[in-house]
Amino acid sequence: MSLADSRPQQDCPVRGRPRSEAVERAIIDGVMKLIEDGVPLADLSIERIARTAGVGKATIYRRWSNKDDLFIDAVRSAEPGDPELPGTSMRDDLVVLLESLRQRGLASRTSAILHNAHVQMKSNPKIWSAYHACVVAPRRRLGLDVLRRGQKNGELRQDVDVELMNDILVGPMLVRSVLRPDAGLEEGLAERIVDTVLEGLRPVSR
Amino acid sequence: MSLADSRPQQDCPVRGRPRSEAVERAIIDGVMKLIEDGVPLADLSIERIARTAGVGKATIYRRWSNKDDLFIDAVRSAEPGDPELPGTSMRDDLVVLLESLRQRGLASRTSAILHNAHVQMKSNPKIWSAYHACVVAPRRRLGLDVLRRGQKNGELRQDVDVELMNDILVGPMLVRSVLRPDAGLEEGLAERIVDTVLEGLRPVSR
Repeated sequence: MSLADSRPQQDCPVRGRPRSEAVERAIIDGVMKLIEDGVPLADLSIERIARTAGVGKATIYRRWSNKDDLFIDAVRSAEPGDPELPGTSMRDDLVVLLESLRQRGLASRTSAILHNAHVQMKSNPKIWSAYHACVVAPRRRLGLDVLRRGQKNGELRQDVDVELMNDILVGPMLVRSVLRPDAGLEEGLAERIVDTVLEGLRPVSR
Repeated sequence: MSLADSRPQQDCPVRGRPRSEAVERAIIDGVMKLIEDGVPLADLSIERIARTAGVGKATIYRRWSNKDDLFIDAVRSAEPGDPELPGTSMRDDLVVLLESLRQRGLASRTSAILHNAHVQMKSNPKIWSAYHACVVAPRRRLGLDVLRRGQKNGELRQDVDVELMNDILVGPMLVRSVLRPDAGLEEGLAERIVDTVLEGLRPVSR
């Protein structure tokens, strides 16, 4: 069995209605402060979080049943929200989606919480799986919807599956964020990627 | 200063001529066994490696000045080597390059050493930087060379920079290896990516 097969397929945990937004915020901020300070997940305890947030342990347990769920919520709150799509064309929607990935890539270079949390998650399959279900998968569904609309509109080839097309569009941003931290994430990159990928790499005169 | 800026630009350490291949192999195998067992980098010591490999500490220190360099060499030896390029066309060379990335992606799903080492490296900027210089950068240079030959041959557009084209080609494999461990890395994927990216995503009849 491969490592991938052993990863549990997980749904994103649904949050209940918060009892007090201010208290929730203080707890989340407490977790984020600890992650930012580089405290490894293994050393995060509900007790330590309670102390940092200035609340009682019971206050935390009323909202989160364990520290993993709380950790995931803290990471979610540090992630930028989904962008508003203009809907003027598939091309424009794709540019906005990739632009938000570019901003996310820039943020992860400077944000200690995004950086540290990512490293922590990668070594914890359960948390990585939840992060995937709560953050990565919804973002991906948004992209697939845009591509499907493009196929209906005739803006996109019909003979390529949208999953592969999405990976081709998203890939370069991931390469520059993850594999090449010294690579440019310059303004205009989203447009360049979308237009280059739509046009193709062969010489234009064919 | 961003996290990216603070990462040292590093060269790949050049290895001297081995004094005894068998001893080197035993030491490297010892490190790999410990990584495979999930021993974190922080808990790896020259002493522990020496015990696992059945050699003296001095034997290790004659070859590696510190455990970081030894760790990097162990990871390098677990990485597949660069593929032989057919040289028949840019397209064929690209397919072979992406096929080797696909194999690398499959290997990292099942190889505990590639998985664990990757997680360790991500939390250690110095080691990540050396890994980048020794493994990622040479693989990348190979791809850029193929694309530059393609631009000379007229197989490739002249108006797109090769760095971006390389990221577009490599990106989907990275997405499927890193971000979507449940995604297909099926046979024929390398050809599909290369041909789709060369052709572009717009409808063919334009």
